[in-house]
Amino acid sequence: MSAGVTFASLPPPPYYAVIFSSLRTPGDQGYEQMAARMVELAAQQPGFLGVESARSEDGFGITVSYWRSEEDIAAWRQHAEHRMAQEGGRTRWYEHFELRVARVERAWGRRRVEGRLPDA
Amino acid sequence: MSAGVTFASLPPPPYYAVIFSSLRTPGDQGYEQMAARMVELAAQQPGFLGVESARSEDGFGITVSYWRSEEDIAAWRQHAEHRMAQEGGRTRWYEHFELRVARVERAWGRRRVEGRLPDA
Repeated sequence: MSAGVTFASLPPPPYYAVIFSSLRTPGDQGYEQMAARMVELAAQQPGFLGVESARSEDGFGITVSYWRSEEDIAAWRQHAEHRMAQEGGRTRWYEHFELRVARVERAWGRRRVEGRLPDA
Repeated sequence: MSAGVTFASLPPPPYYAVIFSSLRTPGDQGYEQMAARMVELAAQQPGFLGVESARSEDGFGITVSYWRSEEDIAAWRQHAEHRMAQEGGRTRWYEHFELRVARVERAWGRRRVEGRLPDA
């Protein structure tokens, strides 16, 4: 799931993160279209805060989606179209995945200004 | 920070995750060597549990390191050689980064067996 360079713009913590690590099977097999659709659909769900995603050329990727609450995550997991995508993940798209649900306690960031990132 | 396809092998939750999202500046500038060294060094720190990393061709990457406790994370942040790398990040390697510290509450995964991932 990658639609270009995108940092999620999030409210102050606490909030929840779903850390999804995966290794793709070879070939697209409809994956990119499904992934784009899932990002579009997730963004419409209650409590969705943002998503960030990267995938290396070797097929290993990490997608982190951010949510207001664990209840919002549970509802997204049960969404009918998302469940169809999960089934595609099991049968076609993923060789292996690991999923971790975490509560974000602290967050900070830096963006380059005049040739360097500001000090902490 | 990518050393090939690697899933972290972690104990049951709870544990802590440092979710580091970054956009690289153009060119290597010593980055890959530093990144490999930081993974090597982190792995020697008390409370280090594992790390997973992916970077897309567009330069956007996510590295998630896993730790036993917030105190272990704080100690790693203050490690002298790691602080030197952080300074390199500010001056040379990163255009922008976001860092989030989270407590992992639940985790599960699936690995392909006989052509599909087992059902949940």
